[in-house]
Amino acid sequence: MAAQVQALYDFSGEPGTTEMSITAGEVLTLINTEIGEGWWEGKNSKGETGLFPAAYVRKLTPDEVTQTKAAPPAPRYDQAADEWGDQAYSAGDNNYKRTASNDDGWDDDWDDDTYSEIGPANQQAKPAHQQQQLTPLPGMPISEYSNHQFDDTASSYASQVGTVRKSKFAPSSKVSGESYLLGTLNVEVPDSEKVYIVQEEEGYAWSPIPNPFSVTVASPKKESKFKGIKSFIAYQLTPSFNNIQVSRRYKHFDWLHERLQEKFTLIPIPPLPDKQISGRYDEQVIERRRIQLQEFVDWMCKHPVLSKCEVWQHFLTCTDEKRWKAGKRQAEKDNLLGLNYCISLVVPEKALLQSQVDQVTEQCHTFINSMDTSVKNITSMCLAQTKRCQGPYKSDCQKVGEAFYSLGNALGLDEGTMVSRSKLTSAIKMTGGAYIEIGRMYDEQPKYDWEPLGDKFHLYKGIVGSFPDVLANHKGAVQKKRECERLTAEHKMEVAQLNEVLRRTDVISYALLAEINHFKVERTEDLKATMQKFLQQQIMFYKRVVDKLENTLHLYDD
Amino acid sequence: MAAQVQALYDFSGEPGTTEMSITAGEVLTLINTEIGEGWWEGKNSKGETGLFPAAYVRKLTPDEVTQTKAAPPAPRYDQAADEWGDQAYSAGDNNYKRTASNDDGWDDDWDDDTYSEIGPANQQAKPAHQQQQLTPLPGMPISEYSNHQFDDTASSYASQVGTVRKSKFAPSSKVSGESYLLGTLNVEVPDSEKVYIVQEEEGYAWSPIPNPFSVTVASPKKESKFKGIKSFIAYQLTPSFNNIQVSRRYKHFDWLHERLQEKFTLIPIPPLPDKQISGRYDEQVIERRRIQLQEFVDWMCKHPVLSKCEVWQHFLTCTDEKRWKAGKRQAEKDNLLGLNYCISLVVPEKALLQSQVDQVTEQCHTFINSMDTSVKNITSMCLAQTKRCQGPYKSDCQKVGEAFYSLGNALGLDEGTMVSRSKLTSAIKMTGGAYIEIGRMYDEQPKYDWEPLGDKFHLYKGIVGSFPDVLANHKGAVQKKRECERLTAEHKMEVAQLNEVLRRTDVISYALLAEINHFKVERTEDLKATMQKFLQQQIMFYKRVVDKLENTLHLYDD
Repeated sequence: MAAQVQALYDFSGEPGTTEMSITAGEVLTLINTEIGEGWWEGKNSKGETGLFPAAYVRKLTPDEVTQTKAAPPAPRYDQAADEWGDQAYSAGDNNYKRTASNDDGWDDDWDDDTYSEIGPANQQAKPAHQQQQLTPLPGMPISEYSNHQFDDTASSYASQVGTVRKSKFAPSSKVSGESYLLGTLNVEVPDSEKVYIVQEEEGYAWSPIPNPFSVTVASPKKESKFKGIKSFIAYQLTPSFNNIQVSRRYKHFDWLHERLQEKFTLIPIPPLPDKQISGRYDEQVIERRRIQLQEFVDWMCKHPVLSKCEVWQHFLTCTDEKRWKAGKRQAEKDNLLGLNYCISLVVPEKALLQSQVDQVTEQCHTFINSMDTSVKNITSMCLAQTKRCQGPYKSDCQKVGEAFYSLGNALGLDEGTMVSRSKLTSAIKMTGGAYIEIGRMYDEQPKYDWEPLGDKFHLYKGIVGSFPDVLANHKGAVQKKRECERLTAEHKMEVAQLNEVLRRTDVISYALLAEINHFKVERTEDLKATMQKFLQQQIMFYKRVVDKLENTLHLYDD
Repeated sequence: MAAQVQALYDFSGEPGTTEMSITAGEVLTLINTEIGEGWWEGKNSKGETGLFPAAYVRKLTPDEVTQTKAAPPAPRYDQAADEWGDQAYSAGDNNYKRTASNDDGWDDDWDDDTYSEIGPANQQAKPAHQQQQLTPLPGMPISEYSNHQFDDTASSYASQVGTVRKSKFAPSSKVSGESYLLGTLNVEVPDSEKVYIVQEEEGYAWSPIPNPFSVTVASPKKESKFKGIKSFIAYQLTPSFNNIQVSRRYKHFDWLHERLQEKFTLIPIPPLPDKQISGRYDEQVIERRRIQLQEFVDWMCKHPVLSKCEVWQHFLTCTDEKRWKAGKRQAEKDNLLGLNYCISLVVPEKALLQSQVDQVTEQCHTFINSMDTSVKNITSMCLAQTKRCQGPYKSDCQKVGEAFYSLGNALGLDEGTMVSRSKLTSAIKMTGGAYIEIGRMYDEQPKYDWEPLGDKFHLYKGIVGSFPDVLANHKGAVQKKRECERLTAEHKMEVAQLNEVLRRTDVISYALLAEINHFKVERTEDLKATMQKFLQQQIMFYKRVVDKLENTLHLYDD
């Protein structure tokens, strides 16, 4: 009997290729494991054969083969709780969901190519982190921590906003974050990598980018591997500082996004393209993704911390396969993750007043809560309006056009000797034509107004949706500081050690304040430009309608 | 036991008055027959009491009282066939339906007031005309007629177009029409009442109106009778030739319309207002009816024959009750009905070529057939677009507005020290306001474009819908002429008598040609103006949208 495998995860084969879709739990018969580059060939219970990623399945033992008909659900990352005591993350976090399921044609583009081995399958195969322990404070009983620590932080926001970012690397970021706060992290950050927080008119701010740059995401090309068996989309990125194009696939973006999320727990990472993008043609979907990738890239470039970070620079510039691999390994070994990253920060000397910090975070929390609703509302409105334009608005106009056209036709049946009547007939027919054309304009219009607006608000949805997690991470640190104060009051912690904790908590607060401020400044400029562009496009549209109707009206002139 | 009556017809009592709705066949107990002016009071089986028109019920004999539980359906006019052999009229003829049922608040305004006793009930009580016989030709066996006469005329059109006008007075008009054709009508028409058909560049035409005039229909007033028990709507008509206002109720229009339809079987009579007019407020419905009455009146005034006819002049000018009654009696006694009216016509001396007449009528038939579909299509489109504007277009705009407004509100929660942000917040809120306002504009807009267009096409629907009947009436005369030619060939009719028939058939054909031509000329001017007005209103609307959005855009200026 041929070897059998069981699918660990869902995989959607790209239609029209040799790929085959498999469903978690499904049992397949192996045909060929020598396809190469991570692909196996198999046959499912319906007798269909095709390729699937070897990492998505596990071989069954002969014993198992007999009892796999109703296999238990495969381990799923999204069933794992993290140690911040929160389970309510599934509602809004698209970024997270993207990595957990692979059901559209885009992020199926997974394989073991030479650029990297990262990918959803690798991550999903490691669901064991929820067992990890906190690093106990020196001299503090472990029981203290495991009982009541950190259980009212993330969850208190999450229950209100419903979205807390789940980093796949939450455990390590958590541990390393703690080690920073508790002073057990011993790392020297070279001056070149230090990040400064400065006081500006409107509050504390990240020190501005000395050499601003931009990156353009060009229309993607479809590339092939295995002599056409595998094809994928690669986007061309060109940074303004060197003008050298690099080619990146979705999985590279996805890998980058994971690195950024694990490293920066106090900075919302802009989202990757919406999985839900819909379009009538593949080209439209690919183009929308490009636009949303451009939004991602723009936000990265404008952020003083993110734009200079090493993994991003590596992503933007590396063209050499060996260097890519080395940089990738280095990024994955990065130990300045989560709160630990704060060791790179240089903040004003002044100690912060906790009450002022609380006030700012409280206001931010209220704002984000309300903003989250608004931003989701606007994204779904953009989608709804797009459908309206391409559906009823268009077809209503066309019905109007057809009614006038048919009137013109009817009048034409009674054409006689009168010239003016013939002119009327033709004018009425052309009025019909004008409305049909306006229908077509409605169909095309969302590309210029509703879709770009939706793309922008997809960005905001991701950023706003990440903020509760950022606030929770900060709140966790403040909570830990208070715990240390209590321990000191109870003489269980040295005052000197507490002072270190207080100073480091202030660094964390400075980072949050700088980030809140950055978001304010950025969105103010950005939303203004967004609204202006949107309104300009709407105005242009209605002006074109007016022009068309005015030209039509002139047909009736004597 | 109190006297019982059975409803002969449906009657809808006006809500909020003492009127009571009754259903044909329903048995009621009489309470009071002394209400006056044609009203009786009764009680129905549910114990409800109210007023209803005495003419709508009949008293039951004591015998009948015991067996009326399942009364047979009351005789309905619309079940009566006319002698042109056609039953397919029920599809499109609103005018006809209006007189047969009384189920809206407007033409319920029936009573025995002193101005007239005409009204639906009087007509509906005489459904016996289908039994009437044709006047046999002198010397022709009756059997000839009753077997194969006139049975492929109206019906052949009706089956294609689906609308044939049903005059309530079809039998008498038919008989008197025949008497003209057969030369048995001996009437002297004074010169002042003669109507001339002249040859013009574009064909034969009614001699133009020497003193054109117009009539305005003013916004109606609600008037009361019986100290408020009955209230009704009266429209104020002011002719331009004397500037004296007269007050007319629906039933007067209805009476007039019946007179015109029985008199002019070769001229389509413009329709009275659409029974289906819908509106959210009574005022809107009343105003739409006023506009459609104005369309009726305008078409009457512009028609060389209709505008000068006596009953119309009487309707427009009579302010004295006694004179009204006298004129009414005279109009009802008018014996120049149907084809008989043609005795008033003075036509060119030239005999018409039947083949040319056939060609014109055939083209007209094809045209009317196609026009009928188009015109109905446009009226229903106007209704659909009105609902769209007041429904989804409005609510979509408002949803867009609310989404922006809520975004502004959310941003307002994070207002700080930055002036520009505050300005952005307010601009975004006002963008929301602008879209909500555009929603309101959509709601209001149909009043300026779709409703007037619909009112105009209601007129055309009525006229176009009457044309098949006009063509059938003409075709019937031609058929009769051919019959006479056959009789003459068989020596059953004198040649001199035939020549008279031929001459008179030509007069009828001249009238049809003039009317076809009149409709061409009128609609050419009228449709042109209609389309221009419609497009101007659409342009104005979209320009207002552009203005609103441009003003909004300026709010984002620095």
